[in-house]
Amino acid sequence: MGSHEVLTGSVSYTLETPDMDFWPIEVSIARAQNSDEDIEVVWADGCTSIYYPFWLREQCSCTDCHSETTREALIDITKIPLEIQAESITLDEQGYVNICWSDGGHKSRYHPGWLRANSYDDWAQKERVSELKTWDNSFSVLEFDGVRLLECDDHLYEWLTALDSSGLTLLKNVPTTKGSIRKIAERIGIIRQSNFGTLFDVVSKPDADSNAYLSIGLPLHMDLPSRETPPGLQFLHCIVNEAKGGASQFVDGFHLAKIIKQEAPEIFKIVTTVDYSFQNRSVDCDFRASGPLIRLDKYGNPIESRINTFIAAPIINLPHDMLKKAIAAKHYLLQTMNEPRFKVEFKMQPGDMVAFDNRRILHGRSEFYPNTGSRFLEGCYLDRDDLGSALRMLERKKRRIKSGY
Amino acid sequence: MGSHEVLTGSVSYTLETPDMDFWPIEVSIARAQNSDEDIEVVWADGCTSIYYPFWLREQCSCTDCHSETTREALIDITKIPLEIQAESITLDEQGYVNICWSDGGHKSRYHPGWLRANSYDDWAQKERVSELKTWDNSFSVLEFDGVRLLECDDHLYEWLTALDSSGLTLLKNVPTTKGSIRKIAERIGIIRQSNFGTLFDVVSKPDADSNAYLSIGLPLHMDLPSRETPPGLQFLHCIVNEAKGGASQFVDGFHLAKIIKQEAPEIFKIVTTVDYSFQNRSVDCDFRASGPLIRLDKYGNPIESRINTFIAAPIINLPHDMLKKAIAAKHYLLQTMNEPRFKVEFKMQPGDMVAFDNRRILHGRSEFYPNTGSRFLEGCYLDRDDLGSALRMLERKKRRIKSGY
Repeated sequence: MGSHEVLTGSVSYTLETPDMDFWPIEVSIARAQNSDEDIEVVWADGCTSIYYPFWLREQCSCTDCHSETTREALIDITKIPLEIQAESITLDEQGYVNICWSDGGHKSRYHPGWLRANSYDDWAQKERVSELKTWDNSFSVLEFDGVRLLECDDHLYEWLTALDSSGLTLLKNVPTTKGSIRKIAERIGIIRQSNFGTLFDVVSKPDADSNAYLSIGLPLHMDLPSRETPPGLQFLHCIVNEAKGGASQFVDGFHLAKIIKQEAPEIFKIVTTVDYSFQNRSVDCDFRASGPLIRLDKYGNPIESRINTFIAAPIINLPHDMLKKAIAAKHYLLQTMNEPRFKVEFKMQPGDMVAFDNRRILHGRSEFYPNTGSRFLEGCYLDRDDLGSALRMLERKKRRIKSGY
Repeated sequence: MGSHEVLTGSVSYTLETPDMDFWPIEVSIARAQNSDEDIEVVWADGCTSIYYPFWLREQCSCTDCHSETTREALIDITKIPLEIQAESITLDEQGYVNICWSDGGHKSRYHPGWLRANSYDDWAQKERVSELKTWDNSFSVLEFDGVRLLECDDHLYEWLTALDSSGLTLLKNVPTTKGSIRKIAERIGIIRQSNFGTLFDVVSKPDADSNAYLSIGLPLHMDLPSRETPPGLQFLHCIVNEAKGGASQFVDGFHLAKIIKQEAPEIFKIVTTVDYSFQNRSVDCDFRASGPLIRLDKYGNPIESRINTFIAAPIINLPHDMLKKAIAAKHYLLQTMNEPRFKVEFKMQPGDMVAFDNRRILHGRSEFYPNTGSRFLEGCYLDRDDLGSALRMLERKKRRIKSGY
């Protein structure tokens, strides 16, 4: 049966699930049995989970069905009949569910912690839903220590959880040497390169290929709406900020979405459904993409803001009437976004690093005056995928400790 | 007015448009005038373009409205009234449209080539639409020369155009040294890194973190459905292929979509709307994402296949009835995909490199036998964004030459 030894650092452990994770047994199974054409597991706390037999068969963790090395599936599910049934269901001494299947007597063994974590009954699905909290100009940005998180997984986890839930965090105490953000980024995942480099210098320069590299004020925006999927995270690390001006400004795009939905539902409908075009053109590249200014998931929750006035491309793919409505709706959204009720503003100090969800938070800066002193920020991007992976790895570690490995 | 000198390589040229591109004047303007509340341009070939004044005002190419250096917008469109009108419209000696606006007399000058290229009347929109051509098992994969495209922009353009339209191409004559694909990739853009590295070795190895690194057959699949946006392009370069077995197999996922839509519309509806889950879990990372097996754009055209049976994660976010229907629909899709009518199959030879759209083409391989000889492929990913940018840069070069710069 699927017993899989893994070495990670100094930890050697055994898995008995179809994945690489640890599932502490927090509630034991009282009984397991066939129920109509499904399989029913009744838990010691009174909850009941119903599993579709084919679904369970696909997740068999034995080494014929999932590779012992990769934990990826070897099973050819096109050969399994959809109507497969359990011929026998028993609980063993360790509290695992053992099933003998109707297709030639294949045997599977299911870990109770894994079964609980992957239960999909209404009550289980509800436990996994978390409500989105958005913020306005009264928001106090949470602060973390840019040195401590390099060493301490708990501090890292606190920071990333805050970044994931509020979309904007501030690190203090990040060494003011170039490249410091690389170490921090590597605690999460792989830096996403772009035509602006792996790390980019936000500084006034003569051969600027972005308005960010001028000294003008930058209106609230997100970066790279010209990409199909813009970077999920942006880090900006302040190394020098002696120039007059150059305050940093932030707005929660998901809060803006919530307010526009309440105050102007017709506008909301347009900015969430019409594709607006963006472009990043330089001497060396020409990126273009389009999408709604506010993207919703299928449940109507905002999952992306794509707002940027300085690299907007002309809309050329709508009928005339719709184009006028789309432009009017954008005009309304931009004017609303700039109202003081949304904006958090502060001037970054050397050693500060803002980390924010580039697809949720709009950021901007007031004009600065290079003749009054230097201003130098270093920046980089990561993807939301990497934040998710890092959070799950930290949670896996917690579960591993709880599981006693 | 917006005259912008740019240096690219040895070419110095002047732009008079709000972007970095060249717009040869292929049709001149016969007349330009107000028409109701819009602006009408009548072309020498009899076509008429109607422009919304605010749209045109936003695209003013003067150096107050677009930075001379970055060609990004400086104009604050929230300060421009939506109902802005042209007070005067004249054609100048060069055939440009000159407009004096109702908001304080701002003056704009529009390049006729740019106006034509960005016209959005029905006839102009229709000219830009190209029909998607999909393929079945009778497809002959187009071949290109892996050395010639390094030097010759025309050959590069032919290759990328074929890759963009058919989703699968074959390069011959790529030097069988490790790292050769990097040079080819860099003709397009930035290699997309993943947890498998910048370049990855497809070879049978004992500590495999993917089934690809075993010697088993790999069912038809695409890579990294566990990412929100999986890599758009995949390159696989054959360096050694002496082992028995290991033939490469390809299916056009967009053709599969077309056929399923015709033959099983109810299944098509489910696989294009239900989110299926995927995971890439190793000792070091835990990526998860979900999406429809076939993603459609808002016009109903397929834009992404997300099909992979060996890193499918259990679906845990659907009601019981819908979950059963989703699993049955996937079962049908997989069985259909494996029918011989779709599949192109050949054994790669040393020096061959397949380049395919990872989000369109399903790829697989037959089992190989490491004790009969070596098999070694080197691979990498890029994004569709980079392919788009590379194609546009090559087209820009063509337009530059046509424009006489």
